[in-house]
Amino acid sequence: MAYELYYWDGLQGRGEFVRLALEEAGARYVDVARSSHGMSAMMDYLHGKHGYLDMPFAPPFLKDGDLVVSHVANILHYLGPKLNLVPEDEKSRIFIHGLQLTVADFVAEVHDTHHPISTADYYEDQKEEARARSAAFLKHRVPKFMGYFNRIVAANPEKGGYAVGGRLSYVDLSLFQLAEGLAYAFPRAMRDFDKDYPLIAKLRDIVRNRPNIETYVKSRRRLEFNESGIFRHYPELDREPA
Amino acid sequence: MAYELYYWDGLQGRGEFVRLALEEAGARYVDVARSSHGMSAMMDYLHGKHGYLDMPFAPPFLKDGDLVVSHVANILHYLGPKLNLVPEDEKSRIFIHGLQLTVADFVAEVHDTHHPISTADYYEDQKEEARARSAAFLKHRVPKFMGYFNRIVAANPEKGGYAVGGRLSYVDLSLFQLAEGLAYAFPRAMRDFDKDYPLIAKLRDIVRNRPNIETYVKSRRRLEFNESGIFRHYPELDREPA
Repeated sequence: MAYELYYWDGLQGRGEFVRLALEEAGARYVDVARSSHGMSAMMDYLHGKHGYLDMPFAPPFLKDGDLVVSHVANILHYLGPKLNLVPEDEKSRIFIHGLQLTVADFVAEVHDTHHPISTADYYEDQKEEARARSAAFLKHRVPKFMGYFNRIVAANPEKGGYAVGGRLSYVDLSLFQLAEGLAYAFPRAMRDFDKDYPLIAKLRDIVRNRPNIETYVKSRRRLEFNESGIFRHYPELDREPA
Repeated sequence: MAYELYYWDGLQGRGEFVRLALEEAGARYVDVARSSHGMSAMMDYLHGKHGYLDMPFAPPFLKDGDLVVSHVANILHYLGPKLNLVPEDEKSRIFIHGLQLTVADFVAEVHDTHHPISTADYYEDQKEEARARSAAFLKHRVPKFMGYFNRIVAANPEKGGYAVGGRLSYVDLSLFQLAEGLAYAFPRAMRDFDKDYPLIAKLRDIVRNRPNIETYVKSRRRLEFNESGIFRHYPELDREPA
């Protein structure tokens, strides 16, 4: 039976981290909200119509048979073993889940660069604050997170260029997405990305060249980055590297 | 062997969600950073001195034998079965983990009420923005999250007042902490909390009256809420209920 992925149509957003895993593994899945009547099917879950244990707070969530799994990190923790995208041992799995939760925190901070005051208001209504938050994000937070991820790859004794172990895991796909998203949102500030975070840049290229990812990225299933998503390109928030 | 919890001393912070689980279960643990040389032991992990798979991004993290588990939700997902604080079945466990990740998102938003622009700057330097973010948080985000959690308890067919299943799980302890923290940070805005979210208020009281929690909250191990933590009381950010 195909996995059912529920996420807003029209943007990559948080759903993309799940899509990349499903696509890399060649798994069968339906992107429900992009199918006919899919939006109302998704809203039924969010409105609690399926009841107890099937009431996610927000998309993305994944339905697999009787199970409804919500939050990107929870979904990938669940899918990892099934899609063969995580090592076997408990220590590695726990560590990768922690890495994915660090990715999740970073994604929330990326979102807040354009919505630092309220998600209920337009970007245009919080532009000045977005400028200040983006400046702090680029100066402090990108180096903190990306420096950390780069050190993780460096510390991996397998030396294959992956975050954990000797082959690709789901968190590598998420790091690819972060690198691509940052380059889209902040092309000026990320000019030296490959020099500053060489192992993340290399990992991004490894992932980019995976046959299934290459096919996916060229397909119509991969939406372009746009200004409805997490990573938005507002030139006024971008700046020269520090 | 005792669990080792690593978290900043001097505040409840995110570590408190883990402490509540350990205390409720009567588990043996060391709050490492509060012991002598504990801070440098913690910093060794953060500086990567223990190497591969033992390099958390930030506290809190838990050491259990050979394992290092980082992020609150990951820690509680790991501890839940060991402390008997989660139901047996996979569906409930996956759902509770999703709930805990929703708690984590909410905690990040609470933090940003006083630091909407940059964690590298003082609150005093972003006071105006904090006022705007807090207003939006109280108007939109508290009802969205707390209303959701209240609906979760309401949907539980066991009717024992818990979020999931017929007895206490770790996420109930976290919901208690959210209710207590909100009441501390925003006493005016939360005046009608018990009326608005009656099942969360009832759950808070259930947790408060658990013998081990009662003992813990009265002990010196439970630090008071203060303005170094996640939940901070700045009267100028509080306001009358909408």
